[in-house]
Amino acid sequence: MYDRLKGFRDFYPDEMTARREVIETLEDTASRYGFREIGTPTLEPTRLYTDKSGAEIVEQLYNFTDKGGREVTLTPELTPTVARMVVAKSQALSKPIKWRSTRPFWRYEQVQQGRFREFYQTNVDIFGSSEPEADAEILAFAADALTELGLTRTDFEFRVSHRDILGGLLEAFDADVETEAAIRAVDKSDKIETAEYHELLVEAGLRPDQAETFDDLLGTDDLTDLVAFAETDRVTEAVENLQAVLEAADDFGAGEFCEVSLETARGLDYYTGVVFECFDSTGEVSRSVFGGGRYDDLIESFGGQPTPAVGVAPGHATLQLLCERAGVWPQEALSTDYYVLSVGDTRAVAATIARELRELGHIVESDISGRSFGAQMGYADSINAETVVIVGERDLENGELTLKEMASGEQTTAPLEAFPGDLQRPTYDDWE
Amino acid sequence: MYDRLKGFRDFYPDEMTARREVIETLEDTASRYGFREIGTPTLEPTRLYTDKSGAEIVEQLYNFTDKGGREVTLTPELTPTVARMVVAKSQALSKPIKWRSTRPFWRYEQVQQGRFREFYQTNVDIFGSSEPEADAEILAFAADALTELGLTRTDFEFRVSHRDILGGLLEAFDADVETEAAIRAVDKSDKIETAEYHELLVEAGLRPDQAETFDDLLGTDDLTDLVAFAETDRVTEAVENLQAVLEAADDFGAGEFCEVSLETARGLDYYTGVVFECFDSTGEVSRSVFGGGRYDDLIESFGGQPTPAVGVAPGHATLQLLCERAGVWPQEALSTDYYVLSVGDTRAVAATIARELRELGHIVESDISGRSFGAQMGYADSINAETVVIVGERDLENGELTLKEMASGEQTTAPLEAFPGDLQRPTYDDWE
Repeated sequence: MYDRLKGFRDFYPDEMTARREVIETLEDTASRYGFREIGTPTLEPTRLYTDKSGAEIVEQLYNFTDKGGREVTLTPELTPTVARMVVAKSQALSKPIKWRSTRPFWRYEQVQQGRFREFYQTNVDIFGSSEPEADAEILAFAADALTELGLTRTDFEFRVSHRDILGGLLEAFDADVETEAAIRAVDKSDKIETAEYHELLVEAGLRPDQAETFDDLLGTDDLTDLVAFAETDRVTEAVENLQAVLEAADDFGAGEFCEVSLETARGLDYYTGVVFECFDSTGEVSRSVFGGGRYDDLIESFGGQPTPAVGVAPGHATLQLLCERAGVWPQEALSTDYYVLSVGDTRAVAATIARELRELGHIVESDISGRSFGAQMGYADSINAETVVIVGERDLENGELTLKEMASGEQTTAPLEAFPGDLQRPTYDDWE
Repeated sequence: MYDRLKGFRDFYPDEMTARREVIETLEDTASRYGFREIGTPTLEPTRLYTDKSGAEIVEQLYNFTDKGGREVTLTPELTPTVARMVVAKSQALSKPIKWRSTRPFWRYEQVQQGRFREFYQTNVDIFGSSEPEADAEILAFAADALTELGLTRTDFEFRVSHRDILGGLLEAFDADVETEAAIRAVDKSDKIETAEYHELLVEAGLRPDQAETFDDLLGTDDLTDLVAFAETDRVTEAVENLQAVLEAADDFGAGEFCEVSLETARGLDYYTGVVFECFDSTGEVSRSVFGGGRYDDLIESFGGQPTPAVGVAPGHATLQLLCERAGVWPQEALSTDYYVLSVGDTRAVAATIARELRELGHIVESDISGRSFGAQMGYADSINAETVVIVGERDLENGELTLKEMASGEQTTAPLEAFPGDLQRPTYDDWE
């Protein structure tokens, strides 16, 4: 007996049916916005992450040396890969580039509720536009996807921040601050004690009184306070950009889901402008459901032409927690349109009927186990067959089939020649 | 600038659109037969392969030690994983178990045309039936999937063999034969010289004259020759089973694609009964397109109850070679139903129209780059937009929109209030 690896999951058909429904909702929503599907490798050169992604991800890499001596890594996120792909074909791609994909990623980290070592995301990105409308379209896609899943404004909210407000405020202090470390501290602030948070800010270079001021500033309701405090173009422009993104999000129908929350920072080093995270409005799912934001410098740092970029990546495991909390996770059972039951020497006729029903697009099973009438009925019931078409020797002599409606248990006969005929959805009722 | 790894592929939207169409054809065909989707891990414990899969696969594993000291491997094939999953939930699953999935696998091997280190397969398996109808349903699914792709009898053929005929014949020789090594030699026979093939058979334990007799026997047109030669129950029953599978395949509509070919052996050690490979009938694609077969002992060897099994796994790269040779690989371009063009201060109205069109299920893009009228028209053209809805300030003052049919270049106006209204597919023609 073999066990699967810790943090990895097997999805049996019942669970997979629900997951597939959610994945299709995310993909279809993105598709309707004109995000085009791409396919990407599972392995990348390790330095794609060690160069840019930040220390936390690097510690969690599934990395190894391949049989050709290459340092390789199971992709822990998609962004570096899509950045690499944009650089490779930059000239040939018309801008804005709008891509989507759904696939697994891997991080070696502590397994807990809603967090696995193999986890699935739907990544949605725009390259080539620095306009607020691009950020807003990402927010609008995310809001639409969640409402398509059945979630409402009372279920979730997008906490929106701006990296240049955070960076600009830190710059405005008279101190030698390590910006990335300070932003990582902000990212952790809601998971740790205030004292510990302030200590991390001090470690990043702020004086204790500055750490307190900084914390207070991030809590303000009025963004003009920040402009007044910093008195720098960087903060002024960042505040204007954040407001422009929120206005565009209003026009695009996502405004009602957005609120400014400067404590939201995102853990990755490559973010530059607007960043946001989706949270459960009830707080029952306590951590961020997913996040996204702008990463305008990454393509250039990968050797490409300067190319602004913004994206979001709903992770399916935390999304499932939110959907389950809200009572909208799909509860689909297996469905089967027809079971074609063969008794006696009727296999060829039963097979022809099954083929004709499949050609009409139906899900059709028939006996592949040499079973008795009763055992076939039991199996038809176990796969939730809607209608059983019984092909028996005596019926066939009369040119007939028997149709059994499984829900009611009623049955009737239909002429063999007329079944399924031109009927797109032949059932018991057509011959009753 | 970063490069992707050798043997791994990036799929940009054009190529991905074609691949997605093929994947959906394979998945939909399997779904109509009642094969249910499952989801499976990318990593498995290495011994899942070292124990059972055979030497060739083990040499090609992407295996490493994870950060917890576990010996792990990127799955080189699906069969051991599904066998593990069947064992884990054997009691709860109603038989026959019919599963499908599409995903990548990894083998460190020489990269060549149609062969990559990361390669995609659609796996389709039946567990719990030893009847010939189960083998035949696998053949029928495969034949249906290929004909749904547009391939015909003149394009492909299934070469069908039986492991127990091969094993039984080897047993019938008065020699101490290593069966697995001899079957691997048969599997290679069409890729190597006859002398080399016979030498491998001799290495496996046959005398040179026996190797020649064995080779001759496999070439026979008349299976009763084999029964007469071996005079063992094993060969007699295997021949009967092969004939029963071919008869069931006839009933199931796949008979015309099947021919007996005992030189077809499949490389993996775990196969037991009927095995088959799909070949290009013209021979232009020179190697096997994909294969499958019965593996009745694997579940038990994994610690489960004895559970017969049979499956097939079309690989997408060789299938693409076959489809391209036959001229049926999809040539789809990007498609976009609407581009909603906003000029002047009309963003909010344009966004509302875009949302309404998306709610009707259409693929709709609009400006997210702050572009001029001409630049937006150029982009709309680059994404093959069928209709452009122009939302201009002056038109809006008159309560109107302009609709431009991109193919003809013609345009007309439509009343803002009536667009899109109840029309499922509003176009230029509705207002002309």
